[in-house]
Amino acid sequence: MEVNRGECIDLKRERETSTIVSEDLAVWWAGGRVQLEERRALERYFFNNPEFDDAVPPSCLSYKERYEHVLAKGTKFIAKLREWQAKDKQAQQQDKDSVDLQLIYEFRTLLSGPLATALFQQSFPLRLHFAMFMPTLLNQCNEEQQRRWLTRAWHMDGIVGTYAQTELGHGSYIRGLETRADYDVEEEEFVLNTPTISAYKWWPGGLGHTANMVVVLAQLYIRGKHHGLQTFLVRIRDEQTHEPLPGIDVGDIGPKMGANGVNNGFLGFRNVRIPRDQMLMKNAQVLADGQFKQAAHPLLIYGTMVFVRVIIVRDVMFQLLQAATIATRYSAVRHQSPIDPNAKEPQILDHLTQQVKILPQIARGICFRLAADVLWAFYQRVMKQLETKDGSGPLAELHALSCCLKAVCTQDAVEGIDVLRKSCGGHGFMASANFDSIHGLAAAAFTYEGEHTVLLLQTARFLIRQFTDSLKRKVLPASVTYLRNAAPLSWGDNLLENAARALEISATGQLRDAWQWQQEQRQSHSRTEHQVNNLAGRRLAAAAALHGHAYLARNALQQLEQLKRSTNQGLFELLQQQVELFILDTFQRQLGAILKWNSVNGQQLKQLEQRYEQLLGILRPNAVAIVDGFDFHDRVLGSTLGCWDGRVYERLFEEARRNPLNQETVNHSYHTHLKTLLQPSKL
Amino acid sequence: MEVNRGECIDLKRERETSTIVSEDLAVWWAGGRVQLEERRALERYFFNNPEFDDAVPPSCLSYKERYEHVLAKGTKFIAKLREWQAKDKQAQQQDKDSVDLQLIYEFRTLLSGPLATALFQQSFPLRLHFAMFMPTLLNQCNEEQQRRWLTRAWHMDGIVGTYAQTELGHGSYIRGLETRADYDVEEEEFVLNTPTISAYKWWPGGLGHTANMVVVLAQLYIRGKHHGLQTFLVRIRDEQTHEPLPGIDVGDIGPKMGANGVNNGFLGFRNVRIPRDQMLMKNAQVLADGQFKQAAHPLLIYGTMVFVRVIIVRDVMFQLLQAATIATRYSAVRHQSPIDPNAKEPQILDHLTQQVKILPQIARGICFRLAADVLWAFYQRVMKQLETKDGSGPLAELHALSCCLKAVCTQDAVEGIDVLRKSCGGHGFMASANFDSIHGLAAAAFTYEGEHTVLLLQTARFLIRQFTDSLKRKVLPASVTYLRNAAPLSWGDNLLENAARALEISATGQLRDAWQWQQEQRQSHSRTEHQVNNLAGRRLAAAAALHGHAYLARNALQQLEQLKRSTNQGLFELLQQQVELFILDTFQRQLGAILKWNSVNGQQLKQLEQRYEQLLGILRPNAVAIVDGFDFHDRVLGSTLGCWDGRVYERLFEEARRNPLNQETVNHSYHTHLKTLLQPSKL
Repeated sequence: MEVNRGECIDLKRERETSTIVSEDLAVWWAGGRVQLEERRALERYFFNNPEFDDAVPPSCLSYKERYEHVLAKGTKFIAKLREWQAKDKQAQQQDKDSVDLQLIYEFRTLLSGPLATALFQQSFPLRLHFAMFMPTLLNQCNEEQQRRWLTRAWHMDGIVGTYAQTELGHGSYIRGLETRADYDVEEEEFVLNTPTISAYKWWPGGLGHTANMVVVLAQLYIRGKHHGLQTFLVRIRDEQTHEPLPGIDVGDIGPKMGANGVNNGFLGFRNVRIPRDQMLMKNAQVLADGQFKQAAHPLLIYGTMVFVRVIIVRDVMFQLLQAATIATRYSAVRHQSPIDPNAKEPQILDHLTQQVKILPQIARGICFRLAADVLWAFYQRVMKQLETKDGSGPLAELHALSCCLKAVCTQDAVEGIDVLRKSCGGHGFMASANFDSIHGLAAAAFTYEGEHTVLLLQTARFLIRQFTDSLKRKVLPASVTYLRNAAPLSWGDNLLENAARALEISATGQLRDAWQWQQEQRQSHSRTEHQVNNLAGRRLAAAAALHGHAYLARNALQQLEQLKRSTNQGLFELLQQQVELFILDTFQRQLGAILKWNSVNGQQLKQLEQRYEQLLGILRPNAVAIVDGFDFHDRVLGSTLGCWDGRVYERLFEEARRNPLNQETVNHSYHTHLKTLLQPSKL
Repeated sequence: MEVNRGECIDLKRERETSTIVSEDLAVWWAGGRVQLEERRALERYFFNNPEFDDAVPPSCLSYKERYEHVLAKGTKFIAKLREWQAKDKQAQQQDKDSVDLQLIYEFRTLLSGPLATALFQQSFPLRLHFAMFMPTLLNQCNEEQQRRWLTRAWHMDGIVGTYAQTELGHGSYIRGLETRADYDVEEEEFVLNTPTISAYKWWPGGLGHTANMVVVLAQLYIRGKHHGLQTFLVRIRDEQTHEPLPGIDVGDIGPKMGANGVNNGFLGFRNVRIPRDQMLMKNAQVLADGQFKQAAHPLLIYGTMVFVRVIIVRDVMFQLLQAATIATRYSAVRHQSPIDPNAKEPQILDHLTQQVKILPQIARGICFRLAADVLWAFYQRVMKQLETKDGSGPLAELHALSCCLKAVCTQDAVEGIDVLRKSCGGHGFMASANFDSIHGLAAAAFTYEGEHTVLLLQTARFLIRQFTDSLKRKVLPASVTYLRNAAPLSWGDNLLENAARALEISATGQLRDAWQWQQEQRQSHSRTEHQVNNLAGRRLAAAAALHGHAYLARNALQQLEQLKRSTNQGLFELLQQQVELFILDTFQRQLGAILKWNSVNGQQLKQLEQRYEQLLGILRPNAVAIVDGFDFHDRVLGSTLGCWDGRVYERLFEEARRNPLNQETVNHSYHTHLKTLLQPSKL
């Protein structure tokens, strides 16, 4: 059997004949040459270290073995990352004893970025210590508490923490949480309890067997009076022995569809006491005598939620493009089903039906990126405004936009990853293809940090307010200005402008329909406002989703204007084609809504569809070079089908050979079970 | 913590207030009272036997442990099933020594039905012995070979087999298979070889470590001359030791997105010799002197492919309804997000946005069933015709319809299962909810036995022929008669007739568009016929999918006419509502195509949408009683969220407690790894 160790012929030819420069795209994609080289250096630092290789494919491990494996690897990862940062920072002569905010943010980014993807694929249990536990301490401790906890937590000095909000019985509707903290005035302590089975904390990452301290959301009661949800810092495991402390019932919630490295846990309290100063007191205080003081700036809490959603848009964009890279390379290596029965079987990427599965997903990922960048800049601008003056106006728009894009982008990314997986046929179904892990992470993001439908309905509430404002001819925020434009579609020469405008008109039409439906329900029946909203729910959610698609299309067009100035011609053309494909693809996918709310004739539709198919043909020859430009390291892709060298079949085999089941030619269960069945005497 | 052992209050109330009789549905669904009771008795026989309980949730096992677990359990399953059948058949005094065809078919059905789902969830390695190996022997052995192998194989007398067709490099396009069998005239033997890595057999179920004999598809060469694909029977493991025989390279291909109990394997040959009489000789013979004789009736091979696709439509229908049952019960137990903030949180099934996720999937499953029954009857009719006369006419229609429905139903079932999983929020993501296993099986069916796009294009080829026939005013087969009706949509009082007709017009329009596009490409460019087909691929596939949707809608309406006579009034009304919801839902989902090819005004759309939402409200109170009527045993559903008693939170907990990781309060990797990181001295 010939095993070729170099780049396979197909990919070599693809790269040689491409008309774009992948490295130009890579530099732009990374945000600059320096950033690109930094990331590459960091990746080399880890990937050249054999400590981080897996002896056994993690998908072959038991759930328990997988935990042990990722905890060991995660521990080494944190230690090495500290070494790397220390080296990096020494040059800048920073004070290493104080907690550096910038450092925490950098750390958090590193723990969620491509490097961590490469090392863990399904995440790991120490991530939330930095991603949620530390930020909560930063945001919600008063100064004294910060002094006491922050440096220790940063150094993990006896502390590994997580954030416990969601309960078995309550997710999206956090006011329904049942865990309670009763203040005991005599002892100056809070007493935590889990009153019912549905009140158990359920889901926090790292909670199962890893964290020894937890930030807990619980309903505060003082002398039987309810004071809303507050945040408490609770030690749950002994600092030395790691045994759960008295009254603590903690464990792992078990295997999931994905993200199986997280060690998600459950947690119950039975009369667990903590001192008064372990309620996080920045936003609300309980004094020794039981007096309660609210001092919150609720907008700041709001801000954290927005932040997480902004990050998620970026995460799923990466996941979608990982999947697209794998599918593109595989489709250039796989030969199947002759187009001409007398010719050799072509690369499957030559089939138009394959192009239409893959190329629009690349375009989609790139346009998600254009939106994620804008959203991030918007977030930073609003946060800065909040520090100085009242920024509640832009905050509402930011909140709505982040809800909407989180919902729409996770939905489309999950769907896209699935299309890409299916485009790889049977081999896409193998765990070693890694679509499974990628899909699992994106599918989790679809639900967590604001369930999909809940977020669309929140967006719709904002849109309905804007819509009624538009009827009063008020000025609207930038992202919804189009709601004021009542003109019907006027089909011009610019196909993309036609398509983007048609999407906006559809969103407006759908929103008006939902609003009118609410009005009708109000007038003709004796329904409460809440029943009215429920009955309009499906229409409101549809309007919010259409708004998201319209926004993504319009934003991509606007960003193109900027890019014309900031990129070289080759790169600009590439991005222009991607934006074009994205908008035409969105138009096709939303065709029902478009034709419902616009008048587009057969000739116009034909023109658009022809251009769409033509574009696929134009982009086909550069497909491999484009995905090369995302510069995903083979370890990040983690896929037998997607590696740079295209040695697909060899890698599928190598991975199968590493399976512990294949280390013996005969499994012992043949002797203990199967053999008995195969004896003729058995009858 | 209160643990309620009975039916939970919510489900009790749902059942008490329902206006339908679940048992009536159950009887109809099972095909009659006798069939229902037989199935229940068989389930009791197995489920009351503690031998078939799992000590550890299979999702917690390593890949190797899972294999050992399912092989042991599968062995017991086969043995017990034989006992059950023997008891059953003794009454009928059958000859137990001859192979009974009926018995094989029954066995095959049992091994793929709800019972096997309950016991294995992700299938098991012995299934293909009965599902593919035995049927191939039956269909392709000549009489002498049947005498030699059939009884032994049926009794598993030293034989456990599988069917090896797909290779690492070739799936859908089987002419591309590379494994070769060279006839050695001197020795009167075939010599099997795997010439390249891509020629390795890859995917056959049970091949990894279980099967000791394999039916192999290979390219036959006699004195260097190619004689097409033939089928060979090859022993690959020693009958006594189970060790791979010389020249055999065999093993497991590794973990997958689902179906992880199958033990899918790879297989390579290096000069493996088998006697001449182990080529299966019913359809083609090689004589001792190397003469080759073709005697195939290729239609019979065709027939097997059709059979498998007919079965798949039924399989995914069951999978979709399993998922719908789980989601419906969970949505009646889960309370979240007040509709009115002053009231108690409602069952989430009261949210319209939740109803629209779940109820249409139930209707979809029921209408898939109506189509699967018709397809099965059609299949049996055609097979009977083939025995007596030339049935090639109806066979082409049957083939196209089975391709189309396999493609469309697997696509929609997979999508539906995913929607249902997401409707259960975070808990739907838990492995113990079992959507993961259900989705995995359906997702596999989307790709295997004819990849989705390949099947749609095969359907389209048939449709294009029918379409050009229709232009010549020829009589068309029943399933495509509508292609001759050129009248535009005339909107009448019957909403369902309007919707079904609009779908047919859309399919016709899309087909005409694809055909015209082919014509244009032919005329205006110097393209080959194959290039033309490739360029029309996207449009052809879209036409075939629309045809499938139109067929499902029209068939459901037609079946309703039959059901009016054969069911009692309550059951008929229930089925009528399901058909109505299915057709309106299909209309909404295909809105883009509908509006592209039909003229439907705003008022008409509004009417349809209002009725759609109204129906959701009408069906809501009976939702739990309807899914009860599918009569899935809790073990079949295998879900913490979907059990009959609705004890969701208790079961999630019980399952988590059984996880081996939770058997120790402190995992040893704390001491070996995490502790070091938590020492302040580390810095």
